[in-house]
Amino acid sequence: MIIIGIDPGLARLGYGVIRVDRDITAPVCYGCMETLAGIRPAERLLEIYNGISSLFDRYPPEELAMEKLFFSKNITSAMGVSEVRGVVLLAAEQHQIPVTEYTPNQVKQAVTGSGRADKNQVQQMITRLLHLDEVPQPDDVADALSIALCHSHVMR
Amino acid sequence: MIIIGIDPGLARLGYGVIRVDRDITAPVCYGCMETLAGIRPAERLLEIYNGISSLFDRYPPEELAMEKLFFSKNITSAMGVSEVRGVVLLAAEQHQIPVTEYTPNQVKQAVTGSGRADKNQVQQMITRLLHLDEVPQPDDVADALSIALCHSHVMR
Repeated sequence: MIIIGIDPGLARLGYGVIRVDRDITAPVCYGCMETLAGIRPAERLLEIYNGISSLFDRYPPEELAMEKLFFSKNITSAMGVSEVRGVVLLAAEQHQIPVTEYTPNQVKQAVTGSGRADKNQVQQMITRLLHLDEVPQPDDVADALSIALCHSHVMR
Repeated sequence: MIIIGIDPGLARLGYGVIRVDRDITAPVCYGCMETLAGIRPAERLLEIYNGISSLFDRYPPEELAMEKLFFSKNITSAMGVSEVRGVVLLAAEQHQIPVTEYTPNQVKQAVTGSGRADKNQVQQMITRLLHLDEVPQPDDVADALSIALCHSHVMR
């Protein structure tokens, strides 16, 4: 089964595609899509939509996992992230990929066994579980992989 | 020039297409897209995207005007509206339609001459300006038409 985890954002969107077969979990492809602040929001959303759609074509995921938006103080940024989420949900629906959402605590709990783990512990854990040589950079990528891993645990 | 005004929402999205030629402003098509609460959010976003895209194909607007999201107390609903906004902005960009946003006060000011006008005054004014027999229903439609009218005033 192929699972894609997405950490949505307008400036940076992290994605992590993993393959889960019985006891083996392996990374397939992961990275970050960046759009420039100087570009019109609609244009940035189109870039993200095109990037995500071609990712879905190249590595057809059977499941998509995304972080549930929870509330930070920055409402304006939450609205920007929601616009990106809308575009991601649309592309997923067009590709008939079911979407599951997790809170940050659920992700930490699934990956490290503790909902109170810090960012560093989560990153070390995904690096180990996916047999990577180093912690994926930037954080958005590590976050996307941890969401995908969280979903793989829940699916079992 | 054809202008489309959009009042975005997940349950109800109001739209109003108007034609502006010299001193004549006339309604072309207006209405409301509704999606059911029982349907998955991604499916609702796809329905809205398809509806908006076919509207853009049928009445190709040269300009799109949308209300700037301002903050009500209901943050969850603001995030839902933002997801819809993301999908509308995407469809507009794919159709190369420039988007302009207005605050509610700017819309009231442009349509009635006063930023403090109430909903009823705005509705009466658009009914008169567009030579309609009655106030368009539901409110989402009247709001969409008032945003389109606001943009037509600014464009002059």
